Amino acid sequence: MEQSVEVTTKTVEELLQGKALDEAVELVASIHPADQAEIFWHLEIELREAFLALLSAEGLAHLLEYLDPDERVVVVEKMPRASLARVLDKVDNDVAADILRTLPAAEGARVLSTMSTASEVLPLLTHADESAGGIMTRGFVALHGKMTAHDAINYLRLQKPNVEEAYYLYVLDAANRLQGVVSLRELVVAPASTTIEEIMIRDVIAVEPETDQEEVARVVQRYRLRALPVVDEERHLLGITTMDDAMAVASEEATEDMYSISGLPAEESIYDPVNVSARRRLPWLILNLVLAFMAAGVVSRFVDTIEQIAALAVFMPIVAGQGGNAGIQTITLVVREIALGEVELKDARRVLIKEISVGLLKGIALGLLVGLIAWVWWSNAWLGLVVGLAILLNLLVAGFWGAIIPLGLRWLRLDPAVASGVFLTGFTDVLGFFFLLGLATLLLSQLT
Amino acid sequence: MEQSVEVTTKTVEELLQGKALDEAVELVASIHPADQAEIFWHLEIELREAFLALLSAEGLAHLLEYLDPDERVVVVEKMPRASLARVLDKVDNDVAADILRTLPAAEGARVLSTMSTASEVLPLLTHADESAGGIMTRGFVALHGKMTAHDAINYLRLQKPNVEEAYYLYVLDAANRLQGVVSLRELVVAPASTTIEEIMIRDVIAVEPETDQEEVARVVQRYRLRALPVVDEERHLLGITTMDDAMAVASEEATEDMYSISGLPAEESIYDPVNVSARRRLPWLILNLVLAFMAAGVVSRFVDTIEQIAALAVFMPIVAGQGGNAGIQTITLVVREIALGEVELKDARRVLIKEISVGLLKGIALGLLVGLIAWVWWSNAWLGLVVGLAILLNLLVAGFWGAIIPLGLRWLRLDPAVASGVFLTGFTDVLGFFFLLGLATLLLSQLT
Repeated sequence: MEQSVEVTTKTVEELLQGKALDEAVELVASIHPADQAEIFWHLEIELREAFLALLSAEGLAHLLEYLDPDERVVVVEKMPRASLARVLDKVDNDVAADILRTLPAAEGARVLSTMSTASEVLPLLTHADESAGGIMTRGFVALHGKMTAHDAINYLRLQKPNVEEAYYLYVLDAANRLQGVVSLRELVVAPASTTIEEIMIRDVIAVEPETDQEEVARVVQRYRLRALPVVDEERHLLGITTMDDAMAVASEEATEDMYSISGLPAEESIYDPVNVSARRRLPWLILNLVLAFMAAGVVSRFVDTIEQIAALAVFMPIVAGQGGNAGIQTITLVVREIALGEVELKDARRVLIKEISVGLLKGIALGLLVGLIAWVWWSNAWLGLVVGLAILLNLLVAGFWGAIIPLGLRWLRLDPAVASGVFLTGFTDVLGFFFLLGLATLLLSQLT
Repeated sequence: MEQSVEVTTKTVEELLQGKALDEAVELVASIHPADQAEIFWHLEIELREAFLALLSAEGLAHLLEYLDPDERVVVVEKMPRASLARVLDKVDNDVAADILRTLPAAEGARVLSTMSTASEVLPLLTHADESAGGIMTRGFVALHGKMTAHDAINYLRLQKPNVEEAYYLYVLDAANRLQGVVSLRELVVAPASTTIEEIMIRDVIAVEPETDQEEVARVVQRYRLRALPVVDEERHLLGITTMDDAMAVASEEATEDMYSISGLPAEESIYDPVNVSARRRLPWLILNLVLAFMAAGVVSRFVDTIEQIAALAVFMPIVAGQGGNAGIQTITLVVREIALGEVELKDARRVLIKEISVGLLKGIALGLLVGLIAWVWWSNAWLGLVVGLAILLNLLVAGFWGAIIPLGLRWLRLDPAVASGVFLTGFTDVLGFFFLLGLATLLLSQLT
């Protein structure tokens, strides 16, 4: 499947360049939208517009549904504005809302005003992009509790609901309040005369429109749901978020956390232009630089000591490096477990004690090892003691910083991952040098 | 929902300690299995066995389905062996196979021999744990192409298939070869006399049992599938993998990649005992130590230079730190884009050129900045030149290492993330010191 995308891209390019449009239309229509999307990215840039022109409004709608949000922006840009409203009428509500959000306000309003699904999409636009309300779709099937299974199946057969997620059917009362849910499977296997009320599950797990999308993904994953309804305070059903959305959110959030720890912006891609990437990544390096100068400031106060015992310069990077790496281990673990919902603020004490204890154990093991090496290598037991103690202390505080930075960011309601790795290595450098050179200065008479 | 788990845990503990077992059974039965699982973890350890005894075989089966693989091991250990076969008969095939894999071979064989679903589970055991064959389930619904929609619905009503994923129905020929797929929705809305052949999709996306689970997750996500069939070379349907599985795999793999970069084992948890955690994390720190000693070895060869210009010791951590942080940015990006399928080996050249170029740009900006600071701070233009050049060179090679380490590991068919961060910071330390101290030694007469 994947290999053939490259071959197909070549063929599409040739057909477009040879103006064999009928053939091109036929070929492209036979391709799965997910593969069309990949061809679009591999196509020479000047052919992209012509490629989109090969697709019907329905085809374009499908293509948009298989793209990531930032990819959609590029595709929409190449689409004729006149047909945009027709295409957006055919995509899922949440995708349409996402695209409208990226347009300039005046243009978005104009497109929306000519859409026949405007009344479904408009409510979604009132919710924040990264909330349950922002990622939900209005495309759900609603039933009434008094219907029989037979009625319900006939109703479906007549309505032919063409909705994103028809696996769960929602049971609403006269005021559109969510009363229960029944799966299509339950409905099909139920005796024809059973009422929906008898087979529905009443205890429906639901979220509110303000719920953060990360929490939506966690609930979907925790309860293994295929769709999760979004309700207001009176349990009016506003829309549903699907497992697709949850999976995309979980993947996005994992990327964001990984990138944040390393000081990369979430939207970074290997295919961005060099100058854009460089400009985006510089701020975190400059933050690291500021912290590194603080570390350098510490070192500069001990220049006299280093001049007397140059061996200290040899062990500086080891003490700092071990602290940095140990702290990054802790930070990575804590950030990820917060993201997966395994660690919450109420666990802070437990996490801190655990990670400081692990730091202590690692510090004893590595402090002994490196201390011994230093002693033997430079035939100086006091040097061994200073180096070993510095490593022990630095690993201890690395455990502390590694736990407290993400927990503290979380407590401040910030992203627990944001540049935490950059901060941490800064701290472990500063403190590592301070421990090593400070101890050496205290014990200077023994060392020389 | 989540807050109440703590309260419920307390109540369950009190009921168990007060031997009010009937009440406890009733309370626990009213709780969602996902919440039961959380209660199990929060319960005092000596009460866990009694807690499991409150659940019926069916209840235990549900609980097992909502646990992560490593959590299942702990629960199974506390379960009476005699009832294990009865419980495993009730869980999804793939979960049963997973649990049997974790038992000692003789015990696993004994349990399997008394299971009524042994014939369904046994084939799964022949596949590798992390392959499509290892995560698939045999719980799918098969139809014949000549059936009408009416027949098919009646068939479902009679069979009442209680399977994990009844949303897709698979159409098989007489030799059990996969011919097509039809969604339950399509079936329900089709006119009663339509044959399945007329409404089925023939071009079914499928994988082979050997396909890596990571690839399964990518295909499910790429084509937004709710289930993905697993077929052999002759397209006999062996089982299906579901979106649940794909989501769990994607989440697991993201965790693994994040942890690998930082030198953490994938199974690490904040709730592991301190000594276990410390023992697991030490190997990577020791690898870092070996690399750090190589860096120290470089430094030790330039002790004379450092003794003459102690300012170099101040800039050592800055040159090394900037290189390390810049390289980690690149490594994180490349590892993640490989995992998401955005970067493949054929893109290696493009990725290398991109990241080296970004390294060059960042190197020029930061080299100028830090060089100027060094010049002004120490009133030594030559020192500024040496520091600036060392940063430029180190960021350039950081871009190179950051791209080549994960791509190289991938080329060797290893995990692209494995300890790559530890290797990288080792390399950037060694080279950073070499550039800084080497240049300083070359220009020693100007510097002093």
